[in-house]
Amino acid sequence: MDIIKVSSRSVPKSVAGAISAVIRGGSPAVVEAVGAGAVNQAVKAAAVARTFLAEDGIEAICIPEFGEFEVAGEVKTGMKFTVDKR
Amino acid sequence: MDIIKVSSRSVPKSVAGAISAVIRGGSPAVVEAVGAGAVNQAVKAAAVARTFLAEDGIEAICIPEFGEFEVAGEVKTGMKFTVDKR
Repeated sequence: MDIIKVSSRSVPKSVAGAISAVIRGGSPAVVEAVGAGAVNQAVKAAAVARTFLAEDGIEAICIPEFGEFEVAGEVKTGMKFTVDKR
Repeated sequence: MDIIKVSSRSVPKSVAGAISAVIRGGSPAVVEAVGAGAVNQAVKAAAVARTFLAEDGIEAICIPEFGEFEVAGEVKTGMKFTVDKR
């Protein structure tokens, strides 16, 4: 499964495009973010993806969970968002 | 409808308790957050609420949207999270 990694410098609209493409392909999209700035961009991306998918009649929801992710060789706690059809 | 306002200083577990109580009462919970720090706490709270509700056999999902909120007399753009049963 492809994982969409988001940083505080990610552009929400671009990430939203990636999320939407995965969901249109029939799979849930998995987004990882470590740190408040990255989590904020991930949430914005999920909100934008909802509007993109709504245009295709798809209602998308988001499932936030804690996760452990490797960033630059170190394991950090962050948030995993699964974006899926409702 | 009661709105749960979250700041960067909010304690995720306490907010999760408030979210869970609303959902157990049969309504969706609405959470507002302005700023990356507040959004991060809101997402953590939603993740904790999911674990609280899972203990009651309830699967909760989160719907992130942009919103305009009044903070100290000023209108600011932030995120609104509707936490609801799937």
